[in-house]
Amino acid sequence: MPLDSKTGVPAFKVVGTRPARPDGIDKVTGRARFGADMSAPGMLVGRILRSPHAHARIRKIDTAKAEALPGVKAVVTRADFKEQSGDLTDILDNVMAGKKALYDGHAVAAVAAVSTTVARKALALIEVDYEILPHVTDVDEAMKPGAPLLHEGMITAGVEPAPTKPSNITRRHEFGHGDVEKGFKKADIVIEREFKTEATHQGYIEPHACLATLSGDGVGDLWVCTQGHFMIRAACAGLLGLDISKLRVTASEIGGGFGGKTTVFIEPVALALSRKANRPVKVVMSREEVFRASGPTSSASMRVKVGVTKDGRITAADGEFRYQGGAYAGSPVEFGAMSAFACYDLENVRAVGLDVVTNRPKQAAYRAPGAPISAFAVESIMDELARKLNMDPIEFRIKNAAKQGTKSSYGPTFGKIGLGATLEAAKSHPHWKAPLKPGQGRGMACGFWFNFGGQTCVSLNVNTDGTCTLAVGTPDIGGSRASMSLMAAEELGIAYDAVRTIVADTSSLGYNDVTDGSRTTFATGMATIYAARDAIKKLCGRAAQIWGIPEDAVTWEAGYAKPSGANAGSFEPLSLADIAKSSGNTGGPIAGHTEFNAEGAGVSFATHLVDAEVDKETGRTMITRYTVVQDAGKAVHPSYVEGQFQGGAVQGIGWALNEEYIYGKDGRLQNAGFLDYRIPVASDLPMIDTKIVEVPNEGHPYGVRGVGETSIVPPLAAVSNAVSAAAGVRLTHLPMSPPRILKAIDELAAKGR
Amino acid sequence: MPLDSKTGVPAFKVVGTRPARPDGIDKVTGRARFGADMSAPGMLVGRILRSPHAHARIRKIDTAKAEALPGVKAVVTRADFKEQSGDLTDILDNVMAGKKALYDGHAVAAVAAVSTTVARKALALIEVDYEILPHVTDVDEAMKPGAPLLHEGMITAGVEPAPTKPSNITRRHEFGHGDVEKGFKKADIVIEREFKTEATHQGYIEPHACLATLSGDGVGDLWVCTQGHFMIRAACAGLLGLDISKLRVTASEIGGGFGGKTTVFIEPVALALSRKANRPVKVVMSREEVFRASGPTSSASMRVKVGVTKDGRITAADGEFRYQGGAYAGSPVEFGAMSAFACYDLENVRAVGLDVVTNRPKQAAYRAPGAPISAFAVESIMDELARKLNMDPIEFRIKNAAKQGTKSSYGPTFGKIGLGATLEAAKSHPHWKAPLKPGQGRGMACGFWFNFGGQTCVSLNVNTDGTCTLAVGTPDIGGSRASMSLMAAEELGIAYDAVRTIVADTSSLGYNDVTDGSRTTFATGMATIYAARDAIKKLCGRAAQIWGIPEDAVTWEAGYAKPSGANAGSFEPLSLADIAKSSGNTGGPIAGHTEFNAEGAGVSFATHLVDAEVDKETGRTMITRYTVVQDAGKAVHPSYVEGQFQGGAVQGIGWALNEEYIYGKDGRLQNAGFLDYRIPVASDLPMIDTKIVEVPNEGHPYGVRGVGETSIVPPLAAVSNAVSAAAGVRLTHLPMSPPRILKAIDELAAKGR
Repeated sequence: MPLDSKTGVPAFKVVGTRPARPDGIDKVTGRARFGADMSAPGMLVGRILRSPHAHARIRKIDTAKAEALPGVKAVVTRADFKEQSGDLTDILDNVMAGKKALYDGHAVAAVAAVSTTVARKALALIEVDYEILPHVTDVDEAMKPGAPLLHEGMITAGVEPAPTKPSNITRRHEFGHGDVEKGFKKADIVIEREFKTEATHQGYIEPHACLATLSGDGVGDLWVCTQGHFMIRAACAGLLGLDISKLRVTASEIGGGFGGKTTVFIEPVALALSRKANRPVKVVMSREEVFRASGPTSSASMRVKVGVTKDGRITAADGEFRYQGGAYAGSPVEFGAMSAFACYDLENVRAVGLDVVTNRPKQAAYRAPGAPISAFAVESIMDELARKLNMDPIEFRIKNAAKQGTKSSYGPTFGKIGLGATLEAAKSHPHWKAPLKPGQGRGMACGFWFNFGGQTCVSLNVNTDGTCTLAVGTPDIGGSRASMSLMAAEELGIAYDAVRTIVADTSSLGYNDVTDGSRTTFATGMATIYAARDAIKKLCGRAAQIWGIPEDAVTWEAGYAKPSGANAGSFEPLSLADIAKSSGNTGGPIAGHTEFNAEGAGVSFATHLVDAEVDKETGRTMITRYTVVQDAGKAVHPSYVEGQFQGGAVQGIGWALNEEYIYGKDGRLQNAGFLDYRIPVASDLPMIDTKIVEVPNEGHPYGVRGVGETSIVPPLAAVSNAVSAAAGVRLTHLPMSPPRILKAIDELAAKGR
Repeated sequence: MPLDSKTGVPAFKVVGTRPARPDGIDKVTGRARFGADMSAPGMLVGRILRSPHAHARIRKIDTAKAEALPGVKAVVTRADFKEQSGDLTDILDNVMAGKKALYDGHAVAAVAAVSTTVARKALALIEVDYEILPHVTDVDEAMKPGAPLLHEGMITAGVEPAPTKPSNITRRHEFGHGDVEKGFKKADIVIEREFKTEATHQGYIEPHACLATLSGDGVGDLWVCTQGHFMIRAACAGLLGLDISKLRVTASEIGGGFGGKTTVFIEPVALALSRKANRPVKVVMSREEVFRASGPTSSASMRVKVGVTKDGRITAADGEFRYQGGAYAGSPVEFGAMSAFACYDLENVRAVGLDVVTNRPKQAAYRAPGAPISAFAVESIMDELARKLNMDPIEFRIKNAAKQGTKSSYGPTFGKIGLGATLEAAKSHPHWKAPLKPGQGRGMACGFWFNFGGQTCVSLNVNTDGTCTLAVGTPDIGGSRASMSLMAAEELGIAYDAVRTIVADTSSLGYNDVTDGSRTTFATGMATIYAARDAIKKLCGRAAQIWGIPEDAVTWEAGYAKPSGANAGSFEPLSLADIAKSSGNTGGPIAGHTEFNAEGAGVSFATHLVDAEVDKETGRTMITRYTVVQDAGKAVHPSYVEGQFQGGAVQGIGWALNEEYIYGKDGRLQNAGFLDYRIPVASDLPMIDTKIVEVPNEGHPYGVRGVGETSIVPPLAAVSNAVSAAAGVRLTHLPMSPPRILKAIDELAAKGR
């Protein structure tokens, strides 16, 4: 980290500024090319046939009539994929059903045809002989003895001794330390409650879309909207039996992902169709398909119990978190259980997670996967405890907050963390002291996210005009092209505008993990800084060569190579542009590279403040004020950081108030569209205020932590705490839609009567 | 170079084999995407208005009517480009005429419109006020005093003292050593003749095509058919005033280039249109435009004089080579003069080159630029001398051939070279001894090309399944993807099929010089070998880490890391795939990189044998047998090498016999199409036999020299020598089309009478 030579504090010149978005003009003029914007000569339209049944055995699929339809160039079913035995088993099964269709919307076959009309006709001609089976979509129902079993013979893992009875519980996780029973005995007040949340969709505006070509020799190209084209490459290569090197995947511009574009859905199908048709195939999901067949998050049921002493010290915390992850194992309950109590410095803590399957689409990651759900339950209890204690809820949290040296509820001991700083900033924020109008309630909550590191490669190339090109392999879902250019410019000592960052395809750069876990600004950023340092070393070497002095007699300072040391001699400093211009004569092009597995990710915390107004007649809630306070470590491009804070809050508000997957008794999704599945729009929302706290992550040269996910962790609880205060009744089931609020008010009234 | 441990000779396992072409299936199934195969939403059609005059002052261009036409989104003229003062001055002037149109076909304006129809209508509505000037298209006419001057005030460079009179001669070059006048005095026989060749086009099947998008913020993307997308980037950035980093250029598959796609024509125009229209713009040249407005090679007139002693030793060689390079300076006469006598070991030699401008399209490189033309003159004289001496022409050349230690006619002293080996191989080839039928003649000729090195970057990425991806920046015009994969596989000790080579875009890789000068297999190959060695170093490091032994205790052998040395310990060798699989746990992805300026290119030589049959009544020539013998240094993929040999011979046959730009008195090109400009087709040709000679280039780890260009140097002379023998008269003007042959026969007959 650059330090001010006098004060010793970080002194950034470029990082922390707010230049114009590099993708701004492209996006507002329509020039940006998204998943559906690529075409190829001879391209076919791919369409997928989906199960209308929540649970059904597939006896037979007859594709003969579809294949015979003029204009149909290929029909694929499960037989066109490579059967799996390892990590990709469930992924294959989700991409194309095998023996059973496990949810309404599950892909069972696909066609490629010369037009959308022909493709639709062909889908109608595919005859699937289904044996309809009983289904289950609710997490609690699915756990009951006698519930319909999705995977016959599935035994819960993580339980000692292993159960003998098959069930829909795929795995049990447990985290914690101390002795919670002993802890509860020390408590003066204990609150225990059951909570429930419904499944929500990430709600990205751009549906999944790709253009695939695959030849008989196994060489393929894929243009796709994704958060991780290297992941797409690995999964598609596996499902189609290809060499990794032979599949070249290019990430399109992305119209939102939020975790939902971290796995494959249509991509292997498009490739299989292309291979069979020997033509390029484009597949674009409809919005209905996005809802029915991509991955929403889990719904959950939870029991949380927390005990406190009269003076407000938590003595024990315990929770059981049951997340359904759709038809296959892998709900984010592990993260949910790990993060549930991570904001607190606890002597006795236990968090148990149960991963449950139901007849719903396989969940996909959604921003801080699992954490907002468990935080909703835990922070609701904390709110209630503070109220019972008559303590300011921020003070209550400050008293119990995790800090440097706290043994976290999920294991590791925290280093320097920023939770306390966010709580202090929230406490002193004008919002916290502002008067409320009648009918309004105020809530607050804290949130935690791990932030990830992971495998990352970047290449920085110095151009002869003194500009630089930075190739990264992590799709830009939240401004990473800007933040990478800022960090490269900072390190090189040149202008932000002189560095253009692009997302390279999978054949042009080494492997990169998916853009997820709020890892990109941290990991790709660190890789960028190291690549810039690699380039600087070479720039100094060229300067040394030009001057005829030893390499170690040259230093890099603010964009210039300078002779340094007693024997270096006296030369005019050479700028990056000077050295770049003559690079052809001093050994050729200059570049810097990093390939590494980034370690040192720093956890981050947020504190949110919410005012809500509840109309007790209609049950409608309005959010009247919202403030996000979050530790960014270092905000590389503060405008993007604020945008992330605001976006997380908004998505959390939708999750808290309106969004929900509604299933009929037939197991079919009833609201697969934005008319019936209501996400918040601008007119539903106040301005979301933000306050960036910067407690540097010691594991990153510039202190970066990552900001995209923590911001969605507190809102479910914060909004619920505000709504509960406004409505005068504790809400324990999300979303707090008008019917649920009215029901709670009515039940309270009935109790009071 | 891998050496056999017993014999000490090179022992390649993969290099030298003939695997299937990596682009074969793509090309035969139509999946390969060429320049015109890319589209973008909202794309416009770009079309260019071209001067119908050979030489005209542009008084005014009125675009108002065109701009007013519905559907027209942009009209550009010279004012839409950045005026130049350096290297790009002539390039800009050729791309879009300024004050004068200098040839029939010269671009004067361009439009972007919603359809081809609208674009064509718009072109017709552009009003250009021309003042027609006198023109000159012939090289000899252009040099005459009083010829129309293309560039008023242009003074010949390279002449001491500088001339005072402006002319169309842009530059004089001189090479050689010794004293030719003294040398001629020692000669027993001296032959001096004038020769002439006509301009030919490279004849690539794919016309120039590109898709451009450029925003107001100077960020652009270009998809283009080219031999060098980094060159395209630099030129377009310069002509449009963009930062290099902001323009991302992707090279499409290429349907032939042969040197003609090493500069810009339509690309800056497409970008200028896109910037003005704020929409993607596709420009595809028609075949007529390719002929009229892309770059053919020079036409030339030459005088060559060579003296020999009775026993066949050359005493002196002298030549003046006058090449017209179209409307701007830069004909390949410098290469023509340098290479003219390079096959010979000469005590006294002089080659003068004159670079002349005429009212023709600016020439572009064409396979061994300049060399076939001067070789035609020199090798014709050599043939005549051998006949006069009654010597076998191969023996005559063996006697005078350049060899290791020869001071070349253009300066450097040759190292290990292969001319002698090709001559010996030709002499012992069955072709040379085969009987001729009546009416047939046999000819032979030698040829030389420098081969280039240059700036090159590659990145090799190791995938977790043990396959590798190699990103190169030199478009594949002759099989380089296969040869790179072969060299990488050889070095890594894995299968050819495990390495996929792709051409990366300009933002994903460091700068690469154009694919030209037969540099790619040499320079990109060397870069590939070094990148593989870089990766091997890292692979060994990972193995050391896994085994817990020092890095220098691990060696790489045939695809395996092995412990080596007394203290290394005993471990099972780890394959590349083993190490790659666990790379995520041992530090992240593994890659190797090279950025360098490749030096050590090795010159190459060829000897061609031709049998021709001339119909003395019609003047039609049939090539009845053809054999190419050429030194490849090392043939990395022998099938491609043979293909290059055959292709060079065929293009040379076309140049020798039929191809020619025909201008009317009005200065307009009369045969701008493949019906009137006749390139050889399969039915015109015999099977071209090939013989690969391998005299390793000491400057390359595997001995590679480069093969694409030398093969077109001998055919003009070889065919002419055969035709002269068959017709019984020396032909000195190419192409030897039926009218010219009949004229020569008639003139001889008239002389004899």
